Amino acid sequence: MPELEENVYLARQSRLSTALQNYQLDAMVLNAGPSLTYLTGLHFHLSERPVAFFFLPGRVPLIVAPELEAGKVKALPNPMQAYLYGEDTGSWPGTFRAAARAARLSGARVGLEPRRLRVLEMDLLEPAAPDAFFLSAQECLASLRMCKDQAEIAAMRQAVQVAQQALLAALDSFQPGIRERELAAELTLQILRHGSDPELPFSPIVASGPNSANPHAFPSSRAIQAGDLLILDWGASVDGYFSDLTRTFAVGEIDSDLEQVARTVADANAAARAASNPGTAAGAVDSAARRVIELSGYADFFIHRTGHGLGLESHEEPYITSGNALPLQPGMTFTIEPGIYLPGRGGVRIEDDMLITDSAGESLSNLPRELASLAV
Amino acid sequence: MPELEENVYLARQSRLSTALQNYQLDAMVLNAGPSLTYLTGLHFHLSERPVAFFFLPGRVPLIVAPELEAGKVKALPNPMQAYLYGEDTGSWPGTFRAAARAARLSGARVGLEPRRLRVLEMDLLEPAAPDAFFLSAQECLASLRMCKDQAEIAAMRQAVQVAQQALLAALDSFQPGIRERELAAELTLQILRHGSDPELPFSPIVASGPNSANPHAFPSSRAIQAGDLLILDWGASVDGYFSDLTRTFAVGEIDSDLEQVARTVADANAAARAASNPGTAAGAVDSAARRVIELSGYADFFIHRTGHGLGLESHEEPYITSGNALPLQPGMTFTIEPGIYLPGRGGVRIEDDMLITDSAGESLSNLPRELASLAV
Repeated sequence: MPELEENVYLARQSRLSTALQNYQLDAMVLNAGPSLTYLTGLHFHLSERPVAFFFLPGRVPLIVAPELEAGKVKALPNPMQAYLYGEDTGSWPGTFRAAARAARLSGARVGLEPRRLRVLEMDLLEPAAPDAFFLSAQECLASLRMCKDQAEIAAMRQAVQVAQQALLAALDSFQPGIRERELAAELTLQILRHGSDPELPFSPIVASGPNSANPHAFPSSRAIQAGDLLILDWGASVDGYFSDLTRTFAVGEIDSDLEQVARTVADANAAARAASNPGTAAGAVDSAARRVIELSGYADFFIHRTGHGLGLESHEEPYITSGNALPLQPGMTFTIEPGIYLPGRGGVRIEDDMLITDSAGESLSNLPRELASLAV
Repeated sequence: MPELEENVYLARQSRLSTALQNYQLDAMVLNAGPSLTYLTGLHFHLSERPVAFFFLPGRVPLIVAPELEAGKVKALPNPMQAYLYGEDTGSWPGTFRAAARAARLSGARVGLEPRRLRVLEMDLLEPAAPDAFFLSAQECLASLRMCKDQAEIAAMRQAVQVAQQALLAALDSFQPGIRERELAAELTLQILRHGSDPELPFSPIVASGPNSANPHAFPSSRAIQAGDLLILDWGASVDGYFSDLTRTFAVGEIDSDLEQVARTVADANAAARAASNPGTAAGAVDSAARRVIELSGYADFFIHRTGHGLGLESHEEPYITSGNALPLQPGMTFTIEPGIYLPGRGGVRIEDDMLITDSAGESLSNLPRELASLAV
């Protein structure tokens, strides 16, 4: 995490207090994850040991955490009341009850993160606060986290630079016959060498030939060969903030209809970037990309949304998806990544990281988007 | 994932049918994660798009998944009925209802994984199957996954070898003044170079000086210096199976009481390894380590359990924790990792990966455990 002054976290907690009011929530409960990090600086991995952070406007926050994490809580710049449990899982319910009682959750409307909170924590929270009403606080938290401040944007710019330089270095190692997994390892090495945080946003996708028709392929032992489309989807992390880029290459000569597909995707990417402006609905950006692909006759092969928000998570709000009326605002950061996937043959995806400024949309990434051919 | 024959997954599903009976469950629902991979070969990342796999003894399993993952479902060797949804999140409830109806969950006792399943999926499952009873299937699934077969053990042996070789290579780059983050990046590089899967079990922990007193420290920009204890905790992945090792080093000369701490932890590690035998309760292994540390007077500074199961997850059953009556059985794999942590000064942890054989406990890892001093 960036070495922020303590008042950054207090300022965020103050904004959360206001946001809770706007969303008619009395309190918030978070488990381990990026929202907890954003609000407190605390960084835990999600594990089999439950963590629950109770945020209560105007009061010192509480946390239920394992004893072995006590050091992290004590090292925080801002006060937090800790309810620690040992390795006996039988002590969990009592610890949760004590914290929930101190938090005075009876009758309260308590926000939570449905995408993050697990049955593990809910099964402890509900009996500990039987009179509380648990509700999704996804929008409330997104309203805080979506618009990045200058320090966050600087970290994301750097994460894009690290990723771009890493790709160029990794491509030096390309040779026909290299396996997807080998190229993925090389790309990972270069991302770290070029200054990423040790924990990458995600493991790079390297998908060649027919595998590239699968948007979420895992690198396999397939040897990359002439005639392949080759998709690389990778990112870096700087101070906890992510980049997430995709470029597609031709390996030697490829069929001319695949070249046409690549031109179409590049046009769709350009149209969506051009449509990314303050005040524009997120859904209109999706439409801009989708229209280009529909006109080319490949509508059925663009099987995902145009993009997703990016920051402390590799997928977060705003989602650049059909029908999303959310107006883009300065400070929002998201991907533009249209793709066309032809089962059995291959796919093309071109992904950039966008920032909405006061006046326009700016692509933080600038690697060439035309289909380049890797020598065989 | 290992390239297993299709009947490996069918055999596991057949064992699951029996296990469900033993645990009085009628069905199982799983989201994205290692249990799903274990049973089907399907590998999804946990994301904002919900996935639900319905296992029903004697019937073709069902899955709710995003359309963009259709390729993975179609590529499976065994039949699975897919309920796919597009990018409109408003279609999720209907898709879940259709799948739950086809699964005939009314009145059924449905097992789930509390540590994995999120409020996101529960909020879709409960209205889709309002007459079902959702119960923890954690023990039921652990009963399948805890005892590894020969192919799984071979992968874990290899993951230990990769990790051990990677450490030795990374230590070549050690020099006083190197930052924790730099050494962590170097160790990551070497893990990949030595043949790990692209997706590591976890990012290496490199914790020096006072930071080493925090069992779950994140690598920082602290420069490693003479007089430090230095904890390295790292692992590799082979065919999806993990290793997880820790060694502690002295940087130059360290205080003699810290050397004594290191001897105590090595003795505790040895005692726990010696106690790891078929038929022994997991809790007795914890006691063996704990007794050594208690006798040394450091009981209050051994703030976690002695170990955890290891396999497709970096923490899984069996947990080597006080009071766990579970008898160790051939094929079980787990860590032994006692530690002593002195706040403000530093910590020592020594972690090996154990396999229970028909007759004994075998440490898969064999790097030296005595405190070695890195030259300054």
